[in-house]
Amino acid sequence: MKLIAFDADDTLWVNEPNYVDVKQKLCELLSHHIDQETLSSRFYETQMRNLELFGYGAKSFILAMIETAIELTNGAITGAEIQQIIDTGRKLLDFPIEVLDGIPDVLKTLSKDFDLMVLTKGDLFDQESKIARSGLGQYFKHVEIVSEKNEQAYQRILQKYGVQPADFVMIGNSLKSDILPVVHIGGRAIHIPYAITWAHEHVADEQLVGKSFMALASARELLALLGKVNQGS
Amino acid sequence: MKLIAFDADDTLWVNEPNYVDVKQKLCELLSHHIDQETLSSRFYETQMRNLELFGYGAKSFILAMIETAIELTNGAITGAEIQQIIDTGRKLLDFPIEVLDGIPDVLKTLSKDFDLMVLTKGDLFDQESKIARSGLGQYFKHVEIVSEKNEQAYQRILQKYGVQPADFVMIGNSLKSDILPVVHIGGRAIHIPYAITWAHEHVADEQLVGKSFMALASARELLALLGKVNQGS
Repeated sequence: MKLIAFDADDTLWVNEPNYVDVKQKLCELLSHHIDQETLSSRFYETQMRNLELFGYGAKSFILAMIETAIELTNGAITGAEIQQIIDTGRKLLDFPIEVLDGIPDVLKTLSKDFDLMVLTKGDLFDQESKIARSGLGQYFKHVEIVSEKNEQAYQRILQKYGVQPADFVMIGNSLKSDILPVVHIGGRAIHIPYAITWAHEHVADEQLVGKSFMALASARELLALLGKVNQGS
Repeated sequence: MKLIAFDADDTLWVNEPNYVDVKQKLCELLSHHIDQETLSSRFYETQMRNLELFGYGAKSFILAMIETAIELTNGAITGAEIQQIIDTGRKLLDFPIEVLDGIPDVLKTLSKDFDLMVLTKGDLFDQESKIARSGLGQYFKHVEIVSEKNEQAYQRILQKYGVQPADFVMIGNSLKSDILPVVHIGGRAIHIPYAITWAHEHVADEQLVGKSFMALASARELLALLGKVNQGS
């Protein structure tokens, strides 16, 4: 094993609940205009429509909230209300980082024997800020922030660092971004599910048929597993 | 010379005029509320206030336009008008890339003898898209997109690629981001000014006293200069 990469959001620290919370505040703000279910589905549609142009991350999320609010109120929403939306969304860029259970211990131990990498997608500025706020930066030799975690992106990174897929482990909570593309290029993947997953990251069960990867209940189990993986390599 | 890095916006392709143009449209949209000069200075204030939280790039620019419009109209701006601002700003993310004069020839020639890098700051998604749209990606061995181009960022990159400062040349239009930090860490810097510079990138003349770097009128002059530089190293 030459390189162990960790996803960041909802693998190293709590992230999605902050987004759910901000979306909930948007629902409350617009509750006199629209019901929560309609808002939720229209918001998701806006996010998907904007993805190609705006990418992932907090700023895209804020812009999608504003556009959805304008659309659902037929332009009747006021400037003052939109400012409230922005102020609510701002929290996504500076919430206190809650590191997930066991992560510091695991990183401390693994970093003695392996090169560790943060490998995450999203907004560069936002992700760098979260790594700094997490206090975990010291354990990682490399940080790679990409715009999309697909097979091409993983291949590009392995090439850049001169690592063979068989010598690479990816650990993360998203089957779509952290597990399947890594399995497809011949790398090893360890899935640690998180309580909530953004709809866009959902994967249909049939896509998992025949795919080989490990699933763990908690990061704490990584030490025993990666000890074993290493002996085998 | 081991590594030659190029800034992207207004060094490889036209960028700032698109931003000036979008800001002009914001002025027109708000002309019944506010004069152009007040708008311009308040907009810049908003951008600077947001920089630490939002970083550089098109999405930050759009959010700053929205906030400025709300502020200057005391919240009276309508949702429909804000949608117009977003639609105008959207252009910043997909304008056709106009490559600067001489750039393709210069890159084609230099890439035969040197490792070339795009080294730019800003929004990851946005910059990747511009590199793809420019058609210049083929000439670059490396792409590094950072959140801020300061001495630390340059040092980190040189370390990552195992390049000594004396073996590194940075080429760009911004004295603040492309030239001074590189000179300060012992690298070589070549300044190719562009017609318009964003206020935030301005550098006071006295900061340049005693600093050694080359200034060229056009990228076309790079071939003669870098030939010479190479013979000397």
